[in-house]
Amino acid sequence: MEANTKTIKSLGVLCSGGDSPGMNSAVRSVVRTAIGLGIEVYGIYKGYSGLLEGNIHKLSLSSVGNIIQRGGTILDTSRCEEFHTPGIRQEAAHILSRKHIDGLVVIGGNGSFAGAMTLHQEHDIPIIGIPGTIDNDISGTEYTIGFNTAVQTAVNAVDNIRDTASAHARTFLVEVMGRRSSFIALQVGICTGAEHVVLSNQAIDYEKIVNDINKGTARGKTSSIIIVAEGEKSGLSYEIKDTLMTQYDLSVHACVLGHIQRGGRPTALDRLIASQMGYAAVQALHQGLRCHVTAFNKGEIEMVPLSECIRGKTESTEAQLELIRALAI
Amino acid sequence: MEANTKTIKSLGVLCSGGDSPGMNSAVRSVVRTAIGLGIEVYGIYKGYSGLLEGNIHKLSLSSVGNIIQRGGTILDTSRCEEFHTPGIRQEAAHILSRKHIDGLVVIGGNGSFAGAMTLHQEHDIPIIGIPGTIDNDISGTEYTIGFNTAVQTAVNAVDNIRDTASAHARTFLVEVMGRRSSFIALQVGICTGAEHVVLSNQAIDYEKIVNDINKGTARGKTSSIIIVAEGEKSGLSYEIKDTLMTQYDLSVHACVLGHIQRGGRPTALDRLIASQMGYAAVQALHQGLRCHVTAFNKGEIEMVPLSECIRGKTESTEAQLELIRALAI
Amino acid sequence: MEANTKTIKSLGVLCSGGDSPGMNSAVRSVVRTAIGLGIEVYGIYKGYSGLLEGNIHKLSLSSVGNIIQRGGTILDTSRCEEFHTPGIRQEAAHILSRKHIDGLVVIGGNGSFAGAMTLHQEHDIPIIGIPGTIDNDISGTEYTIGFNTAVQTAVNAVDNIRDTASAHARTFLVEVMGRRSSFIALQVGICTGAEHVVLSNQAIDYEKIVNDINKGTARGKTSSIIIVAEGEKSGLSYEIKDTLMTQYDLSVHACVLGHIQRGGRPTALDRLIASQMGYAAVQALHQGLRCHVTAFNKGEIEMVPLSECIRGKTESTEAQLELIRALAI
Amino acid sequence: MEANTKTIKSLGVLCSGGDSPGMNSAVRSVVRTAIGLGIEVYGIYKGYSGLLEGNIHKLSLSSVGNIIQRGGTILDTSRCEEFHTPGIRQEAAHILSRKHIDGLVVIGGNGSFAGAMTLHQEHDIPIIGIPGTIDNDISGTEYTIGFNTAVQTAVNAVDNIRDTASAHARTFLVEVMGRRSSFIALQVGICTGAEHVVLSNQAIDYEKIVNDINKGTARGKTSSIIIVAEGEKSGLSYEIKDTLMTQYDLSVHACVLGHIQRGGRPTALDRLIASQMGYAAVQALHQGLRCHVTAFNKGEIEMVPLSECIRGKTESTEAQLELIRALAI
Repeated sequence: MEANTKTIKSLGVLCSGGDSPGMNSAVRSVVRTAIGLGIEVYGIYKGYSGLLEGNIHKLSLSSVGNIIQRGGTILDTSRCEEFHTPGIRQEAAHILSRKHIDGLVVIGGNGSFAGAMTLHQEHDIPIIGIPGTIDNDISGTEYTIGFNTAVQTAVNAVDNIRDTASAHARTFLVEVMGRRSSFIALQVGICTGAEHVVLSNQAIDYEKIVNDINKGTARGKTSSIIIVAEGEKSGLSYEIKDTLMTQYDLSVHACVLGHIQRGGRPTALDRLIASQMGYAAVQALHQGLRCHVTAFNKGEIEMVPLSECIRGKTESTEAQLELIRALAI
Repeated sequence: MEANTKTIKSLGVLCSGGDSPGMNSAVRSVVRTAIGLGIEVYGIYKGYSGLLEGNIHKLSLSSVGNIIQRGGTILDTSRCEEFHTPGIRQEAAHILSRKHIDGLVVIGGNGSFAGAMTLHQEHDIPIIGIPGTIDNDISGTEYTIGFNTAVQTAVNAVDNIRDTASAHARTFLVEVMGRRSSFIALQVGICTGAEHVVLSNQAIDYEKIVNDINKGTARGKTSSIIIVAEGEKSGLSYEIKDTLMTQYDLSVHACVLGHIQRGGRPTALDRLIASQMGYAAVQALHQGLRCHVTAFNKGEIEMVPLSECIRGKTESTEAQLELIRALAI
Repeated sequence: MEANTKTIKSLGVLCSGGDSPGMNSAVRSVVRTAIGLGIEVYGIYKGYSGLLEGNIHKLSLSSVGNIIQRGGTILDTSRCEEFHTPGIRQEAAHILSRKHIDGLVVIGGNGSFAGAMTLHQEHDIPIIGIPGTIDNDISGTEYTIGFNTAVQTAVNAVDNIRDTASAHARTFLVEVMGRRSSFIALQVGICTGAEHVVLSNQAIDYEKIVNDINKGTARGKTSSIIIVAEGEKSGLSYEIKDTLMTQYDLSVHACVLGHIQRGGRPTALDRLIASQMGYAAVQALHQGLRCHVTAFNKGEIEMVPLSECIRGKTESTEAQLELIRALAI
Repeated sequence: MEANTKTIKSLGVLCSGGDSPGMNSAVRSVVRTAIGLGIEVYGIYKGYSGLLEGNIHKLSLSSVGNIIQRGGTILDTSRCEEFHTPGIRQEAAHILSRKHIDGLVVIGGNGSFAGAMTLHQEHDIPIIGIPGTIDNDISGTEYTIGFNTAVQTAVNAVDNIRDTASAHARTFLVEVMGRRSSFIALQVGICTGAEHVVLSNQAIDYEKIVNDINKGTARGKTSSIIIVAEGEKSGLSYEIKDTLMTQYDLSVHACVLGHIQRGGRPTALDRLIASQMGYAAVQALHQGLRCHVTAFNKGEIEMVPLSECIRGKTESTEAQLELIRALAI
């Protein structure tokens, strides 16, 4: 198949997978940049599912007025398992064609990008991905929209817990989101002065946890905070609590922060990067890029092939762990 | 025993039971008001346990500098089961006598007040209670310090959850604190536009919950929030979730907000009332009251006998439930 | 003219004067309560000006979905000088009649209530007022929607300023809103541990200010905060700063908090009271009240004749000043 | 003079110039990292002035307990004009020598760094600078501690102002800090969807401002926000307001956000970078670096010679202005 080189006259924008704060800032930026370039924009509601249902509406400048600061996404989102089926993607391509939509901007995670990549390969639809997930776990980009807000929300929550932990001389396990990745847990650990961080991809070292807590107590600390990366399934911290209480006779409390980390107003940083990425995505389509992602690397937005951004990110955690250890003495 | 009518020259202040935001504002107010009246003030650390250990230190004006806005309590707190024993209270009275402490200000809940009342009755120690608990569950006073902050923290959390619930068209169970009382749950329910509130003292009406959710869905609501009062033991919302999923085939998510509700900066209202109560408590001791509580009723601080404030509060919830129902249509 | 006793089948709701946080919570409550009672509701946009322009649209349950937490007002607001003219009010009454609107809910301050009262007297239109202004300056009610949020916003701001004032050992004048009333200034003063509060209706006592600051410095305080009630016109604190610097050789900084106090998400308390007042307003119209206000007195909503709520409120400030003095020693 | 190669056994840490949120996180990190390496740490209070007064106290692990989240700086800070005098610096070197302090960590801006550089050159004292100023205006580093928090505080404030601006269909000038640099203004402009940003180093283009506002109004915008970089002296926005009103007949309101931007809890990002920089600073001294800065460039901490960080930073603002223009259409 030859490369699609025709000019983009009309584009669709959708959010897919888990929502993250800043998606609205990105949508606003996509819409306004496109209209400024004379490109029509269609909002595709509820992700790929909505695309298949034809839940598609034209957006104007005022459609995205006063949304830069709102959590969630005005386009709604969903996970769409059936998009893994070739026939379904064929149907999606037909719908886009019938609506005269020449290109797509997909805001989501690596799973959503993988679907976008296949759609591009099979049907030559120009697609630019904008990385949006609180987990910051997409390969090829150092940053994903929503991560900073989720970290900030968790940090605020742990600040609160530290108050009561200190007043009562207690130890708390605080479980943060991030699924299989530990990025949220590590930053939250550093930013809250946590005594220990339980990573998601490692065996739990109970001896080490108990040792870290006792070391702090020995030097006069009145409270301890242990940040737990949730891993595959929320609730791990309850298991750790039970083990610490029954096998190590350690009295601890557990808090699972949960979905408060997904919502809320995007931080300034997420609004900034989302605005930059939305602008870059449309400029890229306008200038002829056909299958890329607006990555954020070394402090700047850069366009990276979509194929590099469809896996989970594995990053060395050693430097951050070393920092946590050094500051928790 | 005759009433203790001697002038208070020196008083002790302690926090007891669960900490609540605003306790520091109250401590600051007690200390400054006392010093202004020429009364010496001693901080008793870690509640009744600290009293028994002689963990008592003189406080100055600057001891309480810049604490009005801090969560937790600089005096620390604890629950002290052994204070139920007469011999232990005898020991406490001796320690106060040896330290030449003429009166006590006890900041805490109804359990702490019951202990204070017995101490007063047995040893004629002048005591003023300041109601401090996020649960707002003390008889004799319409308000307890920390309640407004806990409600605000929970409301902020539910605002966040509403964002992601809307983006995904989901139903969330959000469990708030309050132990056996439902005051937090009801206010949070009203302030977040919840579709349903599960009270702590009533059988769970699953048919009603399912009906409320379905009614909302039928008229186009994309998300539902159900506030759950924790009741005796945290975690009730997980049980409700399981029942809704298995017996009613309803997909729901559960969030237990937990101890984030105990910490954090006190709201303006909690700082205000705590400041007023701390001032009123010392003035009361100074003016000869011997066994009272700084209650907040009908919009004002009033002195109420301690004996009226040692039980849990039961209040009609009907008006608030009616409001929630009216606004959730 | 005989009293209007016909049943209300359709009502209009408008916001008038300065906006305040919580107005949206009140609008939501009015709309849902009315629809629940079978009453049609019309949103009148931009206050009395919009009424005169016929800027009136029917509202549904979903018109007010997800607005309980939003600052500003979805109905917009305005000040309308020409409403003081009888002929203009005649025109307003005609428009309401043509739209078959049987009653009005007016959310605003005492100026707006005065206009509403005259409209009622001249044209027998049933009107319920909901007190909404951050200034809390309406006679007949102890509370007005938005006051708590404005105080909280100012308190948060002063907390920030205290940080930098302490780090640099500086004195700050912080000017808060409230026009001719000092309610915001007094509460903010108490809640931030201010060293002095300059009231709006009193001569500025420079000797006292200088004395309060020097007293603090003498006992080791490193920073001082002086809260200034804006009075008739914003900017008073700049004048005070100049006088302190030139006539008293005192180095001070001035901050005018300004309109940040008008916006922002309503606090839990403002959402609660706004929800209760919106409900009470519609119930009152439904039950036949014709010219009342949903006042908040002694901790409860009560219906007060509109005629009692059309003046500015003067309240003794002595108790609050005494508390500030006692705690600033 | 030969290079000072002796091992650092004891170091001093001070804050100098304007305080910024995150300084405490950096101090904590310096102290704990040093103690972990067996290096003694002395807190030098009130910057260079305190150094000259010998206001120097040994710090322990618990000296910096629970300060990671606090605004201001526990070390206090000052501007010290006399440090420009060689004899005064000689005296400073003597004091450090008498206290057996082998090296300095200086947290501050480029002025403070210039003083540090001279002290190093004249007296061979090993010095590492940590860039701390909300203005983000230090050459040689893309980031300075406190910038993100100041931007976030300003963004929150503008969000509030947008609420009331929308409700009243008003135009607001909002003046942000940053002295001669426009970094805060530009980021705040992007993050709040501002209609126009007035930079500090350019002539004010009134025609353009009026045109931007009118363009927005023409397409239905109900409110406009213009961000003003303060420039040399706070209050510029009042002048702009007067000119717009008198010469262009445009009704606008002005808000000077002021010192609220200096205080407050550091954001997660500022805590993170401050923690990393504190750690890197001590490691650098430990490893033999003698006159460097912990710069943040291309997403990472790197050590840059102090000589590169003593000027104000000039950066192209074109990309950010282009983004603001594109999104404000």
